[in-house]
Amino acid sequence: MRWVTFDDETQMFTVTVMNHKTGEQEANDFDYVIVATGHFSTPNMPYVKGLEEFPGRVMHAHDFRDALEFKDQDLLLVGGSYSAEDIGTQCYKYGAKSVTISYRSQPLGYDWPERMEERPLVERLEGNVAHFADGTTKVFDAVIMCTGYLFHFPFLPDELRLQTHNCLYPENLYKGIFWQPNTKLIYLGMQDQYFTFNMFDAQAWYVRDVILEKIQLPELAEREKDEQAWLETYSKVDSVDAEIDFQAAYIRDLTNVTDYPEFAVEKQGEIFKQWQKDKQVDIMGFREKAYRSTLTNTLAPELPEPWLDILDDSLEHFLNISFAGSKEKNKLKEEKKEVEKNKAVKDKAS
Amino acid sequence: MRWVTFDDETQMFTVTVMNHKTGEQEANDFDYVIVATGHFSTPNMPYVKGLEEFPGRVMHAHDFRDALEFKDQDLLLVGGSYSAEDIGTQCYKYGAKSVTISYRSQPLGYDWPERMEERPLVERLEGNVAHFADGTTKVFDAVIMCTGYLFHFPFLPDELRLQTHNCLYPENLYKGIFWQPNTKLIYLGMQDQYFTFNMFDAQAWYVRDVILEKIQLPELAEREKDEQAWLETYSKVDSVDAEIDFQAAYIRDLTNVTDYPEFAVEKQGEIFKQWQKDKQVDIMGFREKAYRSTLTNTLAPELPEPWLDILDDSLEHFLNISFAGSKEKNKLKEEKKEVEKNKAVKDKAS
Repeated sequence: MRWVTFDDETQMFTVTVMNHKTGEQEANDFDYVIVATGHFSTPNMPYVKGLEEFPGRVMHAHDFRDALEFKDQDLLLVGGSYSAEDIGTQCYKYGAKSVTISYRSQPLGYDWPERMEERPLVERLEGNVAHFADGTTKVFDAVIMCTGYLFHFPFLPDELRLQTHNCLYPENLYKGIFWQPNTKLIYLGMQDQYFTFNMFDAQAWYVRDVILEKIQLPELAEREKDEQAWLETYSKVDSVDAEIDFQAAYIRDLTNVTDYPEFAVEKQGEIFKQWQKDKQVDIMGFREKAYRSTLTNTLAPELPEPWLDILDDSLEHFLNISFAGSKEKNKLKEEKKEVEKNKAVKDKAS
Repeated sequence: MRWVTFDDETQMFTVTVMNHKTGEQEANDFDYVIVATGHFSTPNMPYVKGLEEFPGRVMHAHDFRDALEFKDQDLLLVGGSYSAEDIGTQCYKYGAKSVTISYRSQPLGYDWPERMEERPLVERLEGNVAHFADGTTKVFDAVIMCTGYLFHFPFLPDELRLQTHNCLYPENLYKGIFWQPNTKLIYLGMQDQYFTFNMFDAQAWYVRDVILEKIQLPELAEREKDEQAWLETYSKVDSVDAEIDFQAAYIRDLTNVTDYPEFAVEKQGEIFKQWQKDKQVDIMGFREKAYRSTLTNTLAPELPEPWLDILDDSLEHFLNISFAGSKEKNKLKEEKKEVEKNKAVKDKAS
């Protein structure tokens, strides 16, 4: 993808792309352009003074692959959101010597285990020493920037380019999808996310119906009124629970006018809320919780062992886990083993 | 940098860039565009079957920072040129368990130490096992793609874009600099390099004189004749020595017509040839060789210890090395130490 322009006269987009097979650029005209380049594609890499001279590994969360690489290391995670939480707990589990999460505005505030902690903003690095906003320092072996992603559309001119921070209702999009000044330009998945695939899917169905002219978009004034109403509601959202309700309502707003198969958006929202609570109660154990499907009403099987004890992360191992009887069955198995061991000891003794 | 176009009527370039401070794009017109985006900016990352499932670290040479990260590891380097040679010897020095260089067309062919070897093309990876073209296999902890760089000018349309592989005389450039179909488009440093900064510098002086109209470029037919003559000469280059002579002659061709200060291009070429020979003799020791400056006639000081024994790579350490008397002086220092030690032992005994 190289460049997109819109011709007011023909009302068509010209899209210039590179054909990597021929090595030549191609320009084609289209009625609609759908921007679906992903929410987690372009890392945000803020500069920390001294980062360029840090003697250990420096990477963005985007490049994180294997927690084992940080075994026995003192690890600094810059950024206080999901990436830091996930990578931090994962590295803790696989034997990082310590995990320090540096937050800018507010700590995650979970009940961390002994080798994990949060500190305020890292203001600078001097060699392998980090200096934090509270005046404390600590020596680190590696730094992972858990600093999120950019909205990066280098192929779009100003008048077509979404400019937003990561939030639940980006401005200038009708229904969170259509570029207000030109609704033939369509953005998918630009919202911060509790719901993920279902939300993208609901957006895609709405877009399909617009392109097929089953849904007629209103005029600009009407579209802006709708957007303002949503932004007004959003401005009053002041808690995680309210955020979840807001995104559920947004999805409902989309599915209401298409034939998207009914799914229990609000009930799923309740599960997200429970999940948030479970994380508050036990950040190292919440992954063991089982939730009930809103579609089949089936309760997911529990992990047979504590998450912290499951050290093989491979797909093969996960598929071979015997979820059948969950913890209870596992306990019986352990007891049986114990009995057999005692028997063996007795046999040997006799 | 977003996009460059050329207007045949005005004979001007329109350059569209992103102003990251305002978040808006800006377009400005220019008489000349100089492409100086670097030779080592965009990694070439060829696909090896199974690479995406390799369980250890995978990186491009471009991201290599510290050999210590690969201590005690079995390391696969894909690609048989300078990057593999440099990274391989560096990792060997800092304690990699083994270093295997996989080449496509021909091995580097140096006299490697015991823990280093070359193998033909890696055809696929299965888990952490590499399968080579000669049917052999080996287990690896990490893979570094030493596979070079791309000529990547996404901001240029086909008719302005240089398309070349890495060579000493890219086609369609007059004097290796000026885009033949439109000499107002200027490419710097696009050649494969023995000479580096001096060559770029000589190119820049030539370009300066063209822009200041001190040098008048000939018409297209003449320019193409000149290019063809160089390409004809280049086609007969069949050895490293001949390549060095070729690039020296190219630089001389540039400096001949500017007031670039005289420097002994051909003599420097002889040093490059000696350097190549020194590498052939001892790939782990050639860095200890000292060469004589063609400008001051000063012989560089030798490293005081074998390169393999100098384990502190920091700038500070390098600047603190006492080059003064090179190896001889160092030997004396060691002897003095030995004498003092013996004296201390004697003192203690008495």
